[in-house]
Amino acid sequence: MATDVSPGLGIGMVGYSFMGAAHSQAWRNAPRFFDLPLAPQMRVLAGRNREAATAAAERLGWDEVETSWQQLVDRDDVDLVDVCTPGDTHAEIAIAALEAGKHVLCEKPLANTVEEAEKMVAAAEAVAGKGQVAMVGFTYRRVPAIQLARRLVVDGRIGTVRHVRAQYLQDWLADENTPLSWRLDKTKAGSGALGDIGAHVVDLAQFITGEQITSVAGHLQTFVAERPVATEFAGLSGRGGTERGPVTVDDAAVFLARMSGGGIGVFEATRFASGRKNAIRIEINGSKGSLAFDFEDMNVLHFLDTEDGAELGGFRRIVVTEPEHAYVAHWWPAGHGLGYEHAFTHQAVDLIEAIAAGERPAPTFADGLAVQRVLAAVERSAESGAGWVEP
Amino acid sequence: MATDVSPGLGIGMVGYSFMGAAHSQAWRNAPRFFDLPLAPQMRVLAGRNREAATAAAERLGWDEVETSWQQLVDRDDVDLVDVCTPGDTHAEIAIAALEAGKHVLCEKPLANTVEEAEKMVAAAEAVAGKGQVAMVGFTYRRVPAIQLARRLVVDGRIGTVRHVRAQYLQDWLADENTPLSWRLDKTKAGSGALGDIGAHVVDLAQFITGEQITSVAGHLQTFVAERPVATEFAGLSGRGGTERGPVTVDDAAVFLARMSGGGIGVFEATRFASGRKNAIRIEINGSKGSLAFDFEDMNVLHFLDTEDGAELGGFRRIVVTEPEHAYVAHWWPAGHGLGYEHAFTHQAVDLIEAIAAGERPAPTFADGLAVQRVLAAVERSAESGAGWVEP
Amino acid sequence: MATDVSPGLGIGMVGYSFMGAAHSQAWRNAPRFFDLPLAPQMRVLAGRNREAATAAAERLGWDEVETSWQQLVDRDDVDLVDVCTPGDTHAEIAIAALEAGKHVLCEKPLANTVEEAEKMVAAAEAVAGKGQVAMVGFTYRRVPAIQLARRLVVDGRIGTVRHVRAQYLQDWLADENTPLSWRLDKTKAGSGALGDIGAHVVDLAQFITGEQITSVAGHLQTFVAERPVATEFAGLSGRGGTERGPVTVDDAAVFLARMSGGGIGVFEATRFASGRKNAIRIEINGSKGSLAFDFEDMNVLHFLDTEDGAELGGFRRIVVTEPEHAYVAHWWPAGHGLGYEHAFTHQAVDLIEAIAAGERPAPTFADGLAVQRVLAAVERSAESGAGWVEP
Amino acid sequence: MATDVSPGLGIGMVGYSFMGAAHSQAWRNAPRFFDLPLAPQMRVLAGRNREAATAAAERLGWDEVETSWQQLVDRDDVDLVDVCTPGDTHAEIAIAALEAGKHVLCEKPLANTVEEAEKMVAAAEAVAGKGQVAMVGFTYRRVPAIQLARRLVVDGRIGTVRHVRAQYLQDWLADENTPLSWRLDKTKAGSGALGDIGAHVVDLAQFITGEQITSVAGHLQTFVAERPVATEFAGLSGRGGTERGPVTVDDAAVFLARMSGGGIGVFEATRFASGRKNAIRIEINGSKGSLAFDFEDMNVLHFLDTEDGAELGGFRRIVVTEPEHAYVAHWWPAGHGLGYEHAFTHQAVDLIEAIAAGERPAPTFADGLAVQRVLAAVERSAESGAGWVEP
Repeated sequence: MATDVSPGLGIGMVGYSFMGAAHSQAWRNAPRFFDLPLAPQMRVLAGRNREAATAAAERLGWDEVETSWQQLVDRDDVDLVDVCTPGDTHAEIAIAALEAGKHVLCEKPLANTVEEAEKMVAAAEAVAGKGQVAMVGFTYRRVPAIQLARRLVVDGRIGTVRHVRAQYLQDWLADENTPLSWRLDKTKAGSGALGDIGAHVVDLAQFITGEQITSVAGHLQTFVAERPVATEFAGLSGRGGTERGPVTVDDAAVFLARMSGGGIGVFEATRFASGRKNAIRIEINGSKGSLAFDFEDMNVLHFLDTEDGAELGGFRRIVVTEPEHAYVAHWWPAGHGLGYEHAFTHQAVDLIEAIAAGERPAPTFADGLAVQRVLAAVERSAESGAGWVEP
Repeated sequence: MATDVSPGLGIGMVGYSFMGAAHSQAWRNAPRFFDLPLAPQMRVLAGRNREAATAAAERLGWDEVETSWQQLVDRDDVDLVDVCTPGDTHAEIAIAALEAGKHVLCEKPLANTVEEAEKMVAAAEAVAGKGQVAMVGFTYRRVPAIQLARRLVVDGRIGTVRHVRAQYLQDWLADENTPLSWRLDKTKAGSGALGDIGAHVVDLAQFITGEQITSVAGHLQTFVAERPVATEFAGLSGRGGTERGPVTVDDAAVFLARMSGGGIGVFEATRFASGRKNAIRIEINGSKGSLAFDFEDMNVLHFLDTEDGAELGGFRRIVVTEPEHAYVAHWWPAGHGLGYEHAFTHQAVDLIEAIAAGERPAPTFADGLAVQRVLAAVERSAESGAGWVEP
Repeated sequence: MATDVSPGLGIGMVGYSFMGAAHSQAWRNAPRFFDLPLAPQMRVLAGRNREAATAAAERLGWDEVETSWQQLVDRDDVDLVDVCTPGDTHAEIAIAALEAGKHVLCEKPLANTVEEAEKMVAAAEAVAGKGQVAMVGFTYRRVPAIQLARRLVVDGRIGTVRHVRAQYLQDWLADENTPLSWRLDKTKAGSGALGDIGAHVVDLAQFITGEQITSVAGHLQTFVAERPVATEFAGLSGRGGTERGPVTVDDAAVFLARMSGGGIGVFEATRFASGRKNAIRIEINGSKGSLAFDFEDMNVLHFLDTEDGAELGGFRRIVVTEPEHAYVAHWWPAGHGLGYEHAFTHQAVDLIEAIAAGERPAPTFADGLAVQRVLAAVERSAESGAGWVEP
Repeated sequence: MATDVSPGLGIGMVGYSFMGAAHSQAWRNAPRFFDLPLAPQMRVLAGRNREAATAAAERLGWDEVETSWQQLVDRDDVDLVDVCTPGDTHAEIAIAALEAGKHVLCEKPLANTVEEAEKMVAAAEAVAGKGQVAMVGFTYRRVPAIQLARRLVVDGRIGTVRHVRAQYLQDWLADENTPLSWRLDKTKAGSGALGDIGAHVVDLAQFITGEQITSVAGHLQTFVAERPVATEFAGLSGRGGTERGPVTVDDAAVFLARMSGGGIGVFEATRFASGRKNAIRIEINGSKGSLAFDFEDMNVLHFLDTEDGAELGGFRRIVVTEPEHAYVAHWWPAGHGLGYEHAFTHQAVDLIEAIAAGERPAPTFADGLAVQRVLAAVERSAESGAGWVEP
């Protein structure tokens, strides 16, 4: 790891679109609201187009720009590489960064293939002894309501997990005339709804329950096989309005799952759920209680405690904005809800604290690989006709 | 069919527990709230124990009692046989009644096996030309909110169905010490959660969408393999408190489904969903809109119309208690909600009207068979390792 | 009281429109679902138009018809007179019935004026010693969720009541072109939203809290002063389409209240709340907990217990359909919700049981008078400019 | 106004506790997410204690510190003074800043008395011709769901406003043993729930409807007259545990209101609503539609459009996170909700844009005065026995 005599932590970020903006907000906010053992220093942003990268760096708050991630990884003033690029580049960048002695925060999915993810895990393990950390960005874990859900499971408040019912519902492809984009091209995106959003609910289910998915039986579906070619793809022909091209990824993924604790799960990820914009829903039924969460109401966790009895029992609508709840005391008074972006700040805080404490923060690359293996198993199951497949 | 010179319709009901009580309430209520072309006459209730049957008949409003269903079927003053017994007796009674010239209303499931159900359908078809009707009691179809859901699909308001997400959640077995009962014995109950409650959501999905489930990939699970033998089963040994016996049916069933219109479904039926008492939930996402229903709030249908646009669109919480809604004008003013039992009255009304009009009311025995085939396919898929199976 | 050698209770009902239908359903249902000490016998229905009354009696299940309520009151086979007429006739009928030795169930409002209500209370007191009961039909008290709310207050689970927030919201007058009807004519209806629906929330607030409203500060508003004269009122002029007449009652009533236990209340009753069909909402905040109810979801009570703590506390959504809940065990299994009409059956049951036990069932005429006094105080306060007025 | 050759806008903030933190977050975030015509420059923070102010400035991102607000106001590099101190100091600081040629953003309440607020309005008017702006921080106006509510009213989608039902519910005083603090001391806080939180719902009601409250009839209540003296107040006596002192402000305020458009309102503000942490609820019923908002689910607006008809009408649950909604396109993709703090950024953006455009941004000081007058009228009405009082 780069030696740094100051109490700062030099950050270099690769990529600067949606995730880059969210991560930048986190690095900027973390020291404003939390007492950190190391001060994050937003030293450099890497992007191939210097002009665009420079504009982004200025807007997002980075000191300098590099036009290749390799240059960024090589800098002595970078202690941590934050990988916010598309999934097909994660392995190469993250492994190089780890080998260069950097800590790494890598956006999800860890990689587009299990093979790449395995190499990343190996790389992370190889340097773990040197105190280098490698974390994957399953950020929803750090929504306070999800933290509370996890706590309730750990404390035994829901007993043995019987059912997991998890959905990630979006609707931006429900309109058949929504044009093609790189996200619908398997060569670029690797996967469709399964990898993009299904990954999140797989991770959440495993995180909250503390269990592993041990086998899956799944199906992938592409509802709209051809879509209009978007204007910017239409080229010189001028026929953009009528030209159509193939969708090569799944529009939706559904699968059954067996959990390591004996429970069963039902998972769904889709971009065709009209009216559901970003509904990450997870309900868990245990022998002693139940939990339910919907990201459309992200500051709330529903908790059923069977000890409340038949007469007075009912799902408690817990508004997770009390100082007693994870992270909340650092923000605003009770009842003043947080938003989507705050979980990124919590992720940054936990990562910095782990680095300072010499601990390995979760989710580790191994956790990311576990998710990737589940997704790959779903694909294999779907190809083989939905039979059980082990990750 | 028994000739009846009066405008009445003589009813004979076999069985008198939960379903018998609900059906009796329907026969009593139908003429109080609806103008019927034929007056239902509650002539006879059949039960093997004369004393118990007599007490039930008195309480439920039946004129007379028979101690065998055969005697009931043979009576000339019975025009319609209402079968409310457990599923293993449905085929024999219903077929005999049809052959005796009676109309038949048979509780769900139509039968415990596909073979029996097929014979019932054949018997129904054989007499259809004589104007005899045969209807199966998927009563939830006649909840006004479900009728509205069906109407919206028929009217094209949700477009092509992409997703069906259906759950029937109960929790009465979540406690591992709940004792054994006949419902947990495969030789008596035939099936567990799948046949008992899963049947309802299969029928609802097919009814609302107007589509068939064309293949399923499923899993059945028994979470608690042994349970205490209930006191009344413990016999002379006196060891009732500690003796345990096997559960031989499924505690929960989960399956994926492909719909005839190209959509995909995810189904779940369980008796282990702590805190969910009778939550029949169905959400349908189409290309132009979505629907969502939860029986815990049975007078409400949620409807998303994509034509409401991105800025002003949102699931409409329709309180289905207006005179414009199916059946409602016959009851109370707007906003005065109905309960569980009212759908049974609606079923009786529709059945009587169909008989008078010489029409065949849905759900027919063929509809019941279709559900049975789906359930059987789920069982076969589960046995074979969750691969796709066609009903 | 009329001597009756049978174990039955002869009922005579005056009036047969909305409330008459609801009460008839109750008398018919009570013995079907509950074990009653006295069998209600639906002996006679009174209505001025013999033809219409006869048709109603047949449909609603009454044995005979009288064309004057006096004849009904005089009959020896009538033990209880059920008054379902408009409020301006309550006093005369109920007092005559009490003086004739009958029990009386009188629909709300007890009367159109405090003076009449006082006479009714006096008449009821005068015969109480003879075992005659007099009950007023604040039926919503007997919704199971409301019973649970009351129980929680009695058990001290919400502590000292600080706030009552009660609304009865309808919208059938929101359209300015809804035509005139007798309900908008003060000479016939006595009052508008205040007396018609405000009465219910006043009674519920006092019932659940066990407290009295000790002073009010209120305002009445008529938003639409003139409305089209309905076709049937238009007479020979043929100008029905354009003729308009005055609205002489309140469209909406709002008032502040002081409760006898030191809390404060805010009450609202309106027929102009677009989209709210029959939303009876009451929220009570106490020092140790809170309760919230909305009749649009009538099988649910929300309960906040401060003892659940800051971290895990939240309003419990109690589905009030368990056998442990009041009345529920007599109907259907857990989770199978009741509807609007069931509370009328509960009212009939409690009334019959009280008569058999020689007890005085609540709400008594005195309870009805207490509500009437509050409404009158609101009117006085409104007339005087919203200052505090004691009932 | 201070001449500034750069395109920047120099900011000086007075006060640095809760509101100071929220405003600082806004100044930091605005240029990260919005294209601004002027770059806010966080030049100086003023606080009496240099050490504490310096620490705050460092944490919150301010360049320098002054130990008196006068020094801050006098600085040439300050173009805008952001007043985040308690209400009793607003008038003095804001007026001085305006007279010094600065723009002013002043936290609500505008002042603790109407007299002060009037002077502030006069000061603002006096310099308006010079292009100086004066804005009061009713920040909730800039929650996207509230903006949408306002838009729907402006567009005539709810028609004539009939009812406003507004509540601001908190529960931090529900426990009788919560100790005294300056907020419960009238000499320091000026007012209790009425001024602290009631002010917000008064402003929201006037903002969304575009109407004024023309008269009020109100009541103030102090439920717990004495509370324990907090340890830090107990001094040397050591009797802190048992000593009690008086509460001199209202614990709760309730009032009726008449709106300038002919509608009526019911308002409530309390710190005793157990289980309600920060529930700002407002429901508006109009002749053509209704709106409902609850800050506990701040990214959602419920909208009822009567044109949806009786059969298909229902409150639409609009998730206000689409690019079409106000401010949202600058943040995250659809469905990724915002939190409490974002409205402060929106306020900063609108203020900066108004300054650059030479326009006067709302809410103006006159809007703040209007709120203050309503609150004062409520106090006068309460003192006089709840009769109508005009603001």
